[in-house]
Amino acid sequence: MASEIAEQPEAARRTLEHLVPEQARLREVFAGRRRVLLVARGSSDNAAIYGRYLLEVSAGVPAALAAPSVATHYRARLDLSDSLVVSVSQSGATAEIVETQEWARACGAATVAVTNVAGSPLADAADVALVTQAGPEVAVPATKTYLTQLVALAVLADALGPESSLAGDLARVPDVVAGLLDADVSTAAEALAGADDVVVSGRGLLLGTALETALKMEETCLRPVRGYSYADLRHGPISVVGEGLLAVLVASASGPLAEPMADLVRDLQERGARVLGIGGTADFGGLCDLHLAGPDLPETVEPIASIVPSQMMIEQMARRLGLDPDNPRGLHKVTQTDR
Amino acid sequence: MASEIAEQPEAARRTLEHLVPEQARLREVFAGRRRVLLVARGSSDNAAIYGRYLLEVSAGVPAALAAPSVATHYRARLDLSDSLVVSVSQSGATAEIVETQEWARACGAATVAVTNVAGSPLADAADVALVTQAGPEVAVPATKTYLTQLVALAVLADALGPESSLAGDLARVPDVVAGLLDADVSTAAEALAGADDVVVSGRGLLLGTALETALKMEETCLRPVRGYSYADLRHGPISVVGEGLLAVLVASASGPLAEPMADLVRDLQERGARVLGIGGTADFGGLCDLHLAGPDLPETVEPIASIVPSQMMIEQMARRLGLDPDNPRGLHKVTQTDR
Repeated sequence: MASEIAEQPEAARRTLEHLVPEQARLREVFAGRRRVLLVARGSSDNAAIYGRYLLEVSAGVPAALAAPSVATHYRARLDLSDSLVVSVSQSGATAEIVETQEWARACGAATVAVTNVAGSPLADAADVALVTQAGPEVAVPATKTYLTQLVALAVLADALGPESSLAGDLARVPDVVAGLLDADVSTAAEALAGADDVVVSGRGLLLGTALETALKMEETCLRPVRGYSYADLRHGPISVVGEGLLAVLVASASGPLAEPMADLVRDLQERGARVLGIGGTADFGGLCDLHLAGPDLPETVEPIASIVPSQMMIEQMARRLGLDPDNPRGLHKVTQTDR
Repeated sequence: MASEIAEQPEAARRTLEHLVPEQARLREVFAGRRRVLLVARGSSDNAAIYGRYLLEVSAGVPAALAAPSVATHYRARLDLSDSLVVSVSQSGATAEIVETQEWARACGAATVAVTNVAGSPLADAADVALVTQAGPEVAVPATKTYLTQLVALAVLADALGPESSLAGDLARVPDVVAGLLDADVSTAAEALAGADDVVVSGRGLLLGTALETALKMEETCLRPVRGYSYADLRHGPISVVGEGLLAVLVASASGPLAEPMADLVRDLQERGARVLGIGGTADFGGLCDLHLAGPDLPETVEPIASIVPSQMMIEQMARRLGLDPDNPRGLHKVTQTDR
């Protein structure tokens, strides 16, 4: 896991080089269509959440996440002739994702596959395959394949928007990711390893980063962790916040959601929780009990790099807990939802 | 909370009588549109998840949940002229939901409000207001307003589908809900009150019921509870399942997802967890360590009543923990996401 985290600058660079030339083809298959439906599970689902926000916020294209069981179990007949369906799967072999892509095509959708495996069933059946260039991922927890999925989704949003606006910022991502790899995350890892109860929260473009941080911590460190959107946390779960809780907040340094995150820090601290912040404004960082620097990127592409401090602290947290981060108990690399 | 749970058969009956006559008007505003976008937070969001599945599975209408911050903070300009936007809010006064409905109209959408308060800002501004007839809800945890939201969403799906297919089953709901109120949930409440760690899971049409069970338990009993879809549980969190965990599984007695839930019981038990089942097939019920009967209704309308055993056991669980279920710490009846 540690070596794969370190490979991410090159993985991002290769993926950008490989996928930017596909933008013309993406515009071609989207022509005459109005919306994007994303299909994914697990870490890929967290990548898809970023894609969904970016498509709406940056490209102005309505986007949503599909419910795969509507395809695979209920076999609903929907008219998707106005849709581009984007399926995201590291292996390109997860049966329910492959089956949902087939269903989408039968419902009239154009299809794009985001996968790390050229020649996989998902890639072969799609109108356009965006094959990420992460290289083989050996550790069970996805790191470089997740980060390069975000790169692919940003390339897609950039292609479908009215004007190319992300290209310059995307080109900076590999170097910014490289700059994050030198951070000292030991204090954060130690605090997490010693915490009784952990929640992770984030919002908007960074919601997927928060949920991926929670999922990664749960599967790598075998600790129950709850991931919430900022709004969901306020609607109920905030009532269980108290002494002993460590709240991990993933925040943006810019954009319209940056300020409210500072208010959330104060609210959580008043209830007795400690806050570990990642990224955010100077005000936000100053309020947090512990803080890791985030990437210096605009909010639209920031989530691609924001996951890096989380990956690093989770990898160290697992080792502190005496676990092998590369092979967490009970998980396989390709998850089949049904048996 | 207990008295409001008991009022639900009448609340459902009144809501059906009041809303079925609106179906012609609903078809009218949907004419020429192709999809539904649901806007909600908290318990209403769990109701919206049911609405989303039902619209796709039963009515064949593509449906999705909106991300309110795209409207309220990012102020994205999307073309929603093909959409009906359905906003769900008990009070009809939650600022971000009202603002998102205004945004949707400005983006070209037709609008439907599902709210318990006639004359609320949400109801007044909508093209059609589906005002649930739950009566005033005094306890902070939503019960009868949640259940009647599901009734309203079923009336909506029934109106938008190619043929009215739910009417007969919907008419049976009030009596079936009444029949559930006599169940003895004390053993389940005792097990939950004594559990170290609780997760709740469900799938498809019953996913919203599972997430609402988790949210309600968290806000009423002040215990951390994780709610997962069946698929999300399999993709990572299953690795933290072990001794001391009580898994609450909400299952359907029929439909294509009934069988896989029995497999999940076995898997969880093999990992050392105990399983408390609600509803499901006879096979499922027989495998569970503890079991509460679900409603005898087809899967399409079953979730309206499936929440009732959860509400009852959570109310008793709170009392066993020495808490007042009507006034959990730290929550207000109308939640504003931002301050």
